[in-house]
Amino acid sequence: MARVYNFSAGPSMLPEAVLKTAADEMLDYQGSGQSVMEMSHRSKTYDKIIKDAEALLREIMNIPDNYKVMFLQGGGSTQFAMVALNFMNKNNKADYIITGQWAKKAYKEAARYGDAKAVASSEDKTFSYIPKTDKSMFREDADYVYICMNNTIYGTVYHELPDTGDIPLIADISSCILSEPIDVTKFGALFAGAQKNMAPAGLTIAIVREDLIGNAMDICPTMLNYKTHADADSLFNTPPCYTIYIAKLVLEWIKNEVGGLDKMKELNEKKAKLLYDFLDNSELFKGTVVPEDRSLMNVPFVTGNPDLDAKFVKEATEAGLVNIKGHRTVGGMRASIYNAMPYEGVVALVDFMKKFEAENK
Amino acid sequence: MARVYNFSAGPSMLPEAVLKTAADEMLDYQGSGQSVMEMSHRSKTYDKIIKDAEALLREIMNIPDNYKVMFLQGGGSTQFAMVALNFMNKNNKADYIITGQWAKKAYKEAARYGDAKAVASSEDKTFSYIPKTDKSMFREDADYVYICMNNTIYGTVYHELPDTGDIPLIADISSCILSEPIDVTKFGALFAGAQKNMAPAGLTIAIVREDLIGNAMDICPTMLNYKTHADADSLFNTPPCYTIYIAKLVLEWIKNEVGGLDKMKELNEKKAKLLYDFLDNSELFKGTVVPEDRSLMNVPFVTGNPDLDAKFVKEATEAGLVNIKGHRTVGGMRASIYNAMPYEGVVALVDFMKKFEAENK
Repeated sequence: MARVYNFSAGPSMLPEAVLKTAADEMLDYQGSGQSVMEMSHRSKTYDKIIKDAEALLREIMNIPDNYKVMFLQGGGSTQFAMVALNFMNKNNKADYIITGQWAKKAYKEAARYGDAKAVASSEDKTFSYIPKTDKSMFREDADYVYICMNNTIYGTVYHELPDTGDIPLIADISSCILSEPIDVTKFGALFAGAQKNMAPAGLTIAIVREDLIGNAMDICPTMLNYKTHADADSLFNTPPCYTIYIAKLVLEWIKNEVGGLDKMKELNEKKAKLLYDFLDNSELFKGTVVPEDRSLMNVPFVTGNPDLDAKFVKEATEAGLVNIKGHRTVGGMRASIYNAMPYEGVVALVDFMKKFEAENK
Repeated sequence: MARVYNFSAGPSMLPEAVLKTAADEMLDYQGSGQSVMEMSHRSKTYDKIIKDAEALLREIMNIPDNYKVMFLQGGGSTQFAMVALNFMNKNNKADYIITGQWAKKAYKEAARYGDAKAVASSEDKTFSYIPKTDKSMFREDADYVYICMNNTIYGTVYHELPDTGDIPLIADISSCILSEPIDVTKFGALFAGAQKNMAPAGLTIAIVREDLIGNAMDICPTMLNYKTHADADSLFNTPPCYTIYIAKLVLEWIKNEVGGLDKMKELNEKKAKLLYDFLDNSELFKGTVVPEDRSLMNVPFVTGNPDLDAKFVKEATEAGLVNIKGHRTVGGMRASIYNAMPYEGVVALVDFMKKFEAENK
């Protein structure tokens, strides 16, 4: 069996140790005689799994007690509606910073339910930077300010959060959750699709400050009301049990194998530095993002020649460096180097880029 | 390793052959060098998986071309809102038959969005029967009539569908999907949480007649609009990829190992008959459902003595017959004998019941 280095933007690589444990426990989870796939979500065995997953997430991310953690379904796209339906409820106003397609989709969904305003955007330069904001740009009576913290398609990230004063900051952290420490207290709510740094697709994490829960609009579907899930500890209905189990294994890997988020960040910085340093010195390849806003997770780059880009993608794939094609709106390539991408994978990529550059000068 | 017989109402047993394949392919799906958990949902390899899953479902269930099949998230509980938001759109009226807690929840959610009417109910006898209806009981201008086809908690099933005339019939088939052939053309829409007969929790199947799609209420969240998913072939956003892969394995098992839904029904009838025949002749145990409405999938039974029930559940668990405790609203026991429960499991249960009866006369 030859495992490949998978640079997919998500779903994406999982730690090999996690996959091995999942395979080993597939027919019999710890002597229960059942797969986790088969367990009643109301059983004691499963209850320990979901409670352990939450406790690990709280410990690793240092989530304060006044924040609820929810295991949901529907992905970030469902959160776009949930954020608006739950939080745009005081003055029916919310301010959005448009840093890419996902932020834009979130904004458009919110605009269906109230006065959503795009206060800043980097669309003028294909979202290749994070627009600067200051507190005066936000409406004082906005119910929240919304950002997409790491922009998967464009490879930008907020290294510094916008100052929103007393207005709750809501963030989509789908593609950077667990990649480095984050100060949860700076946010009113955070959410993340799990399929990048945490689990297979089909699980969405929401972390919401308690005082923001319980004021959903009347039209909010029961299942899209954070209160429904917060009150039931994510067991209002059957949760995506197996995906939560894999998340637990990933969280155990971060805690026990990696050593927590400080260590995770070190490793992610080391991987990203290797790739960015090469890009900054390459005569053929160049990164598409302004240096100060570069993501640790998603690294788009181009040769400037679409034919050469296509040749690169083809040959990289043949060399076991897969899913490296860039998003069509940026073109070129994109290396997503999430937590589970080993350092050796980035070394292999950079070596391959060097070789390709030498052969295609 | 001692696998148990798991009588859980859901999530529930999966065919052992499916679990073995999943374990074998965990680190490398068919030479791709990736787990299905890690694959981009936009990759060719994954695209074949989801397309094969849909094609198999269409073939096995004989779904006509004018019905869309969607792989969704959020469970039946999210469908309760989706049904109302999408279908209660002509006269804003819908008629519900209340055959248990789930039908009631669906009704209550619909009542938040329009004129939902409970036209019949079996709540007077703890939902132990299917209320008789005739066409005259439904409002002529109802946008749809809603039923829960198999009632997991109470063990009832519609052996004959209500005659709704020209009014579309919408059914929750979560706990009977794939258990026997069903005439899809009799329905406007069907949906099912997959965690009983099809896959692990975290996947919801919707089968919707095309002419009913595209008329959602303005307030309907984008992700709760069937049109969103129908137009994108379930790839509007990242679907629950791995869960769909397991569903594909289960569908292959039904097609190739079982031999289709006629054979599946035969096997399910054989299992159910063994248990019902025993119940009908037992001096200690008795079924709680009227004979003509008995489910093939969920078989609630009681001794009439709560202490003896508790003793039975405890001793059964020790004997490897697990999750047999009844729902608190019915009490006693419930054996959920879904597709993946082998005949031998029901034999083991009946043998155990005989022994228990002899010891506790």
